[in-house]
Amino acid sequence: MSAPTAIHRAASADEIIALLNELGQPLATERASLEAAVGRVLRESVGAPEDQPPFDRSAVDGFVVRLDDANSEFQLIDEIRAGDWKPRELQPGETIRISTGGALPGKALQVVMQEDAQVSGRMIRLTKRGASGNIRFRGEDARAGQVLVEAGTRLQAGPLALLASLGHAQPLVTRVPRVLHLATGNEIVAPDQAPQRGQIRDSNSILIRAFLRHWQIEPAQARLPEDEAVAKASLQAPDSQLPAADLLLISGGASVGEHDFTRRLLEHFGFEILISKTSTRPGKPLIVARRGNQIAFGLPGNPLAHFVCLNLFVRVALEKFSGGGNPSRFHTGTLAANLESDRNARETFWPARFELNHGRAELTPLRWSSSGDLTSLATANALIRVRAGGENLTAGTAVEFVPTNF
Amino acid sequence: MSAPTAIHRAASADEIIALLNELGQPLATERASLEAAVGRVLRESVGAPEDQPPFDRSAVDGFVVRLDDANSEFQLIDEIRAGDWKPRELQPGETIRISTGGALPGKALQVVMQEDAQVSGRMIRLTKRGASGNIRFRGEDARAGQVLVEAGTRLQAGPLALLASLGHAQPLVTRVPRVLHLATGNEIVAPDQAPQRGQIRDSNSILIRAFLRHWQIEPAQARLPEDEAVAKASLQAPDSQLPAADLLLISGGASVGEHDFTRRLLEHFGFEILISKTSTRPGKPLIVARRGNQIAFGLPGNPLAHFVCLNLFVRVALEKFSGGGNPSRFHTGTLAANLESDRNARETFWPARFELNHGRAELTPLRWSSSGDLTSLATANALIRVRAGGENLTAGTAVEFVPTNF
Repeated sequence: MSAPTAIHRAASADEIIALLNELGQPLATERASLEAAVGRVLRESVGAPEDQPPFDRSAVDGFVVRLDDANSEFQLIDEIRAGDWKPRELQPGETIRISTGGALPGKALQVVMQEDAQVSGRMIRLTKRGASGNIRFRGEDARAGQVLVEAGTRLQAGPLALLASLGHAQPLVTRVPRVLHLATGNEIVAPDQAPQRGQIRDSNSILIRAFLRHWQIEPAQARLPEDEAVAKASLQAPDSQLPAADLLLISGGASVGEHDFTRRLLEHFGFEILISKTSTRPGKPLIVARRGNQIAFGLPGNPLAHFVCLNLFVRVALEKFSGGGNPSRFHTGTLAANLESDRNARETFWPARFELNHGRAELTPLRWSSSGDLTSLATANALIRVRAGGENLTAGTAVEFVPTNF
Repeated sequence: MSAPTAIHRAASADEIIALLNELGQPLATERASLEAAVGRVLRESVGAPEDQPPFDRSAVDGFVVRLDDANSEFQLIDEIRAGDWKPRELQPGETIRISTGGALPGKALQVVMQEDAQVSGRMIRLTKRGASGNIRFRGEDARAGQVLVEAGTRLQAGPLALLASLGHAQPLVTRVPRVLHLATGNEIVAPDQAPQRGQIRDSNSILIRAFLRHWQIEPAQARLPEDEAVAKASLQAPDSQLPAADLLLISGGASVGEHDFTRRLLEHFGFEILISKTSTRPGKPLIVARRGNQIAFGLPGNPLAHFVCLNLFVRVALEKFSGGGNPSRFHTGTLAANLESDRNARETFWPARFELNHGRAELTPLRWSSSGDLTSLATANALIRVRAGGENLTAGTAVEFVPTNF
């Protein structure tokens, strides 16, 4: 396993992403039913077990005749439906009614579409014989053994249907990551409780839960006791989910004190702190730590900082865990409106609305009055990267962005 | 309720989409927990219950002083952490340590960042007093009553977090549609069974199941008995899911006979057939029917036709059911490679790979040898619309497309 080096100054977004790419190891695999595999990553290449299609099949509803049969009137001698298997030698003047998907009874045949036939009893008159045989020949789509679904494919509806058609009903996929989310912060109350003066409602727990659903993850979520000794004891209890977690997310309060609390807790449990500060905004007191193959994040309490850190950083860890491809983190797009920022001393990820407009990626920056302003979360589906020291950006400028909705 | 008119000829994709837009009615609403609301559509506008933020809060960790206090040395008299509520009048020469998010004790104050302070016991020397007060003022983000999340918003991570922060823990959302999927076709066997000669494996059931997950739908799925009388009886049984289904999907076999079977079945149960044929490819023997607010689709058995009909048509019904916005069905993009089609007599939806490349939507057509060729399902994430009668399309041509992955 690689051993990334800790960064002892404020790390840039690119540095954090590079470190996570080095750190994250694909999780173990398991065989799963197609239903249980939805959204997970295939970890084996799957080939065609037999030629595709496995036999010559009719592409239409119609009538089978010999290719070399120049008659225009035929005797109907049988019917072949999809699912039938009736090999026989057809004689000149004979025809068989065949359904789409039906197996051809032999070679050197043609299927004439039923629209081009007049039927009277068992007499079939073909009014038109096109050039097409209307046959899907054995092996036309793929030969036996040819790889059809590559390892690393995320199993959405299409590839799952293809696996099913190949009879690959127990694909080898990455197991679902185990995630433990702990919320700290004495000013936090549940969303359905009335906050006292000075308190705010917990919005990070649902943010994390909804974010993780893309990876089929149901996190274990708990409040971390305020008292450090009690918090440590709870994580050492026999039922603690910490030992088995692949990913530990600790939602800090916003303050330095809670950041230090998270840091001491991680160190107490043997995590190596790799990053304890970022130069990106929002997200300053971010912690990234590791213990063996476990990865831990200490996330700044502000929900928008959570939103940014989840989409920029936690996502990288999850993608690495998944064993799937590692898609480019940033896309290019064009600003559809001015982005006026008076606080661009640090690299900033700005909430925005992404749309395809006439084939071009357009980004509309959303109103964002301060780091605590959450109103943009209602509609943001992208984050624009504003480089440190950048001037105000005008409409039409090319910018980098990360999509945030799935 | 609107009463769309049946189309008695082969309907175009645009006609089918228009009909479904007219036909589909938003389903009833219900209040759900934030967890249960993930991915569903909000059906009420939600405003700020109080000013956001609800009180003046510190934006940093630091020291509170009076704005009009010109001292550089201060006596530390208290500490305010996030969650505390300690209003008091600060005197000149006094300071209070405050954490990020902490409630300011009064008005006309400034927070000096702790980086700009030297601490020795209870003596605090401020080395720098910037122009910024480092305060997020009450109502700065939103005023009480201002709408922050609009009705029609799909509740992904961001808006859910915002609802949580507003204390809106039981949002009014659309109930999850009830979907019944029936598979017909005597040539179909389960994916984990070895097909006999002439048989093929069922790939449509997993395709539909994975497709519906985007809408949080777990469909009821069953095989429809071959015998028409038995099939009717099973749908009339006391435990039949047909009466309660919002959406009925019948996967036909590919043949005309099964198409007619589906049609007779729907008519038997009082569905009005609105469309029984489409001019688009693949998808020819498509059926669209309605019974009250129920919508039924008879889908051609071919999995690629399923893929196309689900993404083009069934999606419209589900979007209408959801009560959400009705986004434009087609995007514009540029062909990244030639699209050579010798069968463009009919409007065709061609499997393709969509990518954003330097801010532009690019479409790479996938190999597709025949209507039965499923290999493109491994990687397709878009469908290119090829207009009827169109010539072969060369790289660089602007095309319309529909994304198919979520």
